[in-house]
Amino acid sequence: MPLTGNMPIGSRSVRGAGAPIHAYNPANGEKLPPDFAGATQADLKTACALAQAAFRPYRLAPLARRAEFLEAIAIAIEGLGDELIERAMAETGLPRPRLEGERGRTCGQLRLFAQVVRDGWFLDARIDPEISHRKPARRPDIREQHIGLGPVAVFGASNFPLAFSVAGGDTASALAAGCPVIVKAHSAHPGTSELVGRAVQSAVAQMGLPEGVFSMLHGSGTTIGAALVAAPEIKAVGFTGSRGGGMALFKIARERAEPIPFYGEMSSINPVVLLPGALKARAAAIAAEYVASLTLGAGQFCTNPGLVLALQGAETEEFANAAAAALNKTTAQPMLTAGIRSAYVEGVARLSQHPAVEKLANDASDHPHHARGALFATSAKSFASHRELGEEVFGAASLVVRCANLEELIGLLEGLEGQLTAAVHMSEGDDAAMEKLLPVLEEKVGRILVNGFGTGVEVSHAMVHGGPFPATSDSRTTSVGSMAIQRFLRPVAYQDLPDALRPAPLKEANPLGLARLVNGKLTLP
Amino acid sequence: MPLTGNMPIGSRSVRGAGAPIHAYNPANGEKLPPDFAGATQADLKTACALAQAAFRPYRLAPLARRAEFLEAIAIAIEGLGDELIERAMAETGLPRPRLEGERGRTCGQLRLFAQVVRDGWFLDARIDPEISHRKPARRPDIREQHIGLGPVAVFGASNFPLAFSVAGGDTASALAAGCPVIVKAHSAHPGTSELVGRAVQSAVAQMGLPEGVFSMLHGSGTTIGAALVAAPEIKAVGFTGSRGGGMALFKIARERAEPIPFYGEMSSINPVVLLPGALKARAAAIAAEYVASLTLGAGQFCTNPGLVLALQGAETEEFANAAAAALNKTTAQPMLTAGIRSAYVEGVARLSQHPAVEKLANDASDHPHHARGALFATSAKSFASHRELGEEVFGAASLVVRCANLEELIGLLEGLEGQLTAAVHMSEGDDAAMEKLLPVLEEKVGRILVNGFGTGVEVSHAMVHGGPFPATSDSRTTSVGSMAIQRFLRPVAYQDLPDALRPAPLKEANPLGLARLVNGKLTLP
Repeated sequence: MPLTGNMPIGSRSVRGAGAPIHAYNPANGEKLPPDFAGATQADLKTACALAQAAFRPYRLAPLARRAEFLEAIAIAIEGLGDELIERAMAETGLPRPRLEGERGRTCGQLRLFAQVVRDGWFLDARIDPEISHRKPARRPDIREQHIGLGPVAVFGASNFPLAFSVAGGDTASALAAGCPVIVKAHSAHPGTSELVGRAVQSAVAQMGLPEGVFSMLHGSGTTIGAALVAAPEIKAVGFTGSRGGGMALFKIARERAEPIPFYGEMSSINPVVLLPGALKARAAAIAAEYVASLTLGAGQFCTNPGLVLALQGAETEEFANAAAAALNKTTAQPMLTAGIRSAYVEGVARLSQHPAVEKLANDASDHPHHARGALFATSAKSFASHRELGEEVFGAASLVVRCANLEELIGLLEGLEGQLTAAVHMSEGDDAAMEKLLPVLEEKVGRILVNGFGTGVEVSHAMVHGGPFPATSDSRTTSVGSMAIQRFLRPVAYQDLPDALRPAPLKEANPLGLARLVNGKLTLP
Repeated sequence: MPLTGNMPIGSRSVRGAGAPIHAYNPANGEKLPPDFAGATQADLKTACALAQAAFRPYRLAPLARRAEFLEAIAIAIEGLGDELIERAMAETGLPRPRLEGERGRTCGQLRLFAQVVRDGWFLDARIDPEISHRKPARRPDIREQHIGLGPVAVFGASNFPLAFSVAGGDTASALAAGCPVIVKAHSAHPGTSELVGRAVQSAVAQMGLPEGVFSMLHGSGTTIGAALVAAPEIKAVGFTGSRGGGMALFKIARERAEPIPFYGEMSSINPVVLLPGALKARAAAIAAEYVASLTLGAGQFCTNPGLVLALQGAETEEFANAAAAALNKTTAQPMLTAGIRSAYVEGVARLSQHPAVEKLANDASDHPHHARGALFATSAKSFASHRELGEEVFGAASLVVRCANLEELIGLLEGLEGQLTAAVHMSEGDDAAMEKLLPVLEEKVGRILVNGFGTGVEVSHAMVHGGPFPATSDSRTTSVGSMAIQRFLRPVAYQDLPDALRPAPLKEANPLGLARLVNGKLTLP
């Protein structure tokens, strides 16, 4: 079925009457048909009312059905076949293998959450049985489970048109938690969004779920996006994007009459620490891996290594020279949108002209739509006295900071804002330094990596894709991995409720076969 | 040691130079010595700097030591003996048995969190082991644990001078999470606060912990309290108190340069639903239990039953008449402060004069410092058209709402703001009605009780003392019970970290003997 430019709102295909969104091929700037009609406030109201109506029946449907629904979405996305990949390539400039991999990851993520739903672990079922003979008063029977917060607004990200977009991690985890979802599609890939949105819509129908479980809106972030976050039916928000956009929506979420949780993954420069032993053992090899990570997807990763910290000396120069040489051999790549490219070009120009910064490798690309990686260097003292050097330049730009000694390096880390990741390269003799670094990094980042780079983010149970502000707006959570479901849940306790009326996870006979915390002790079925 | 009027800040006893706080005996209005010198901004800065310095060594200290510390606080509080009880009686007007019970609860709570720390359950340790042969790329080893957020500000509540105050649930759970605590003592019981604050201070010294693990400040909420929430060292806030006070501090917490979690437990009228079968079987008995719950502690409980919903008819009138009669037989009690009493008296007067409200039992107390319970009635239609009738009157005032039928009663519940608790009284024949009520209550409250009242809050593992806004500012949590520790934690992932450097909870050999989630499967030691 060809693209319509319509929006899936509940079970309907709605032609918006708002300002249209246009898709462009970022590799050449050409407009791609069709026009995507933007949502009106009336469309938004409809989506919210449907989501509100769907919440109770959806959350009360059996967990097995919720799990099947997540799997049905994955199957429907796979069923889109090459049409999805080709449209995503055209809209994002990302290469086929990357998008095929991202589709696999997206569908794997939906299936992981299906498993999480079946396991029931996320319910955190707890039972404190009655103690009838307790003095001075009997202890009542108290049981607890977690339920969904209510309808969730999801903002697709530009840089992962599948994995962090319409049916990405936020949507998968919210649906897994029992929450209906309304997606504000990212304007950089509206056609990809329509295809995936229709796939989710078809899965809702196929499973016989209430239509309001899923809707998708086109429109600008400042109008439709802002109105969505402000809508009283919405009880939480998932967002991945820029710090400016995220903070504007975060402000709306917390200033509403009823403030709601806002999970924004916003900004990170992901420090990489190169310890002396590692540099001595393999400076050139680290440089090669680093440039590969830096330029992956034209550097458009939240976990892109934007800052390298090392002790000044010959090995660090060897690393820097090797990295500059490798970077100069890379080819220019298209960036996701003209706006992202121009912000990157401006950021690189700012660093190039900065008096305290030395240019190691240029971004010399005269292609009007492509960009190349850029590498700079400075001293720890300059970095400390120029706060702007710590700001993210979204794209393949990175800054090497030469530190006089480990104490200066640690001081620099202590002064950084919160980050998604920190990578430490270490080898023999670096253990003592790493022991000093670890507690600092624990307080500063969501994920600490050794001898790797953060650009690969496993979708697993122990993954944390989060971190202290401003990496995210809420450091208590992750937006990748099975823990992400916890963002959309709240606990409810039941005191002395007769067994016949108890929710299935809390019934005496444990019909779901859950591991439960009984009197604070983990009890297996 | 007599009361000094000083503040425990780190290891010192500091005489504030700010405006002094005076203690009063609410039973007779008499001022109680000594004066409690208020904190200056410099005192606040000192406490914050000490807390910041203490955070890392405290959170990295062995869990066993953290647990012992919590137990040492309990022992030190018990060691205060009758001096504590007598001072608390004098400052709060609460009777001895209640305060002795509250002391037991407070110390039990500290010991519960010691057990939680030893169990290590709260760390949520997860391991996704390496898969070296995976294609196209190996899966790295990823491990996760939760660590403390950083220094926590705690605001003591007026109505629980021990259990929700200086060493109450917020302090116990934050210390258990590995976070230093700075308490803003409630001005209604500064002497009780000093005694307990010194007990905590002595436990810090006894355990050889960094002095900044605990400090306590006297001062007004609008100056010292506001500055404490705004202090950059503070990473989370626990608050129990009024909606006005809570919302003012919440605003500061979310508008800081670095927004921080704010856990405010603020306002609730705790609907009680009397189903027809229960009223038929035992209207008079329910009325007696209800009045006992309503007047407990002069009604100064967050979970006080302020709203009763029943179907209009003879049994409901029998209940209302019995409750009014029982209430008329109760004696007036002192309230916690002159301000709380006058707000209560005004609230009762507002209801008494409300044209849509019928007075069932009077608050006729001519004692200048005491107050009596008050009972009113209205119809569901009047309740729906007068939103002010749904506002909390803090104290022993309650409103019976007669509903035409179950649908009207459910509609009224759907229209309520979020609540801490809802109680349903049911008997034979009420199951079908309860099945309709349950999903509504799940979305509206933190705890659903059957055939009881919410004024008893068990400190256990399944307890939820929380609920949707405005009952609390963050419905994802509880402020009572072992789950409360989760408020002060955030996840950190470690990728490919050598085993020797891994934190103890994540080491391959599992030296702490934790239950861990390995590849998403619960694995016992």
